[in-house]
Amino acid sequence: MDRIPILRMGAFLLVTIQVDLYDRLALSLEADLVDMVHKTGARGVLIDISSVSIVDSFMGRILGNIASMTRVLDAETVVVGMQPAVAITLIELGLSLKGVHTALNVERGMTLLNDKFGQDDELAGDDADDAE
Amino acid sequence: MDRIPILRMGAFLLVTIQVDLYDRLALSLEADLVDMVHKTGARGVLIDISSVSIVDSFMGRILGNIASMTRVLDAETVVVGMQPAVAITLIELGLSLKGVHTALNVERGMTLLNDKFGQDDELAGDDADDAE
Repeated sequence: MDRIPILRMGAFLLVTIQVDLYDRLALSLEADLVDMVHKTGARGVLIDISSVSIVDSFMGRILGNIASMTRVLDAETVVVGMQPAVAITLIELGLSLKGVHTALNVERGMTLLNDKFGQDDELAGDDADDAE
Repeated sequence: MDRIPILRMGAFLLVTIQVDLYDRLALSLEADLVDMVHKTGARGVLIDISSVSIVDSFMGRILGNIASMTRVLDAETVVVGMQPAVAITLIELGLSLKGVHTALNVERGMTLLNDKFGQDDELAGDDADDAE
């Protein structure tokens, strides 16, 4: 299990980070993601970091890199599920994750991406709104 | 990072297993999932095992347990993304995952759950079908 799985959900890709991102794993994640965006024509990438409790500048840089790489391929990256302590640490480290969208959880991240791309044909149905 | 994150997506929960499920982690996953199904009223649980390359009878039992527990709470469990080698090993071990639904990937798993529950109010929009 030396790769982080990338799940395809309609026009978006979903990645949940559950392990410490050491160098090689981070690089292979970058490569896999870019590859997958290219192969599937995905319009958005959701990165769930809800189980990440410790963050350092390396992690911040990797997230920024992924966002930049996918943007070149016309896909937006949304980082979701950040723990409050992680947000505090990031800012204290001087990393404001410029160029990376963030959302509280996966559902809100998907809504954000849907709004951005104005309901792609593969992703119809925001009727869920009236349930709230 | 000693817990496997459970993501909520509409009326379903999504779990991706990326690490070896040792005893305590498996037990806490079971407890967290049952808790989350109870709290959110989720109708389905998707368990992605696409990065699991080695499976043993323990893993098979855990998947069966989760399926049974969620069923008592009126939610169906679908195991998705199984690698071919894992399928072979499971059958050779005599574990046919009775009571556990399976699907090739997350998207098909979601379709299966959607079909099962006939489009819950939270999960409207299957217009995607005409895109295929």
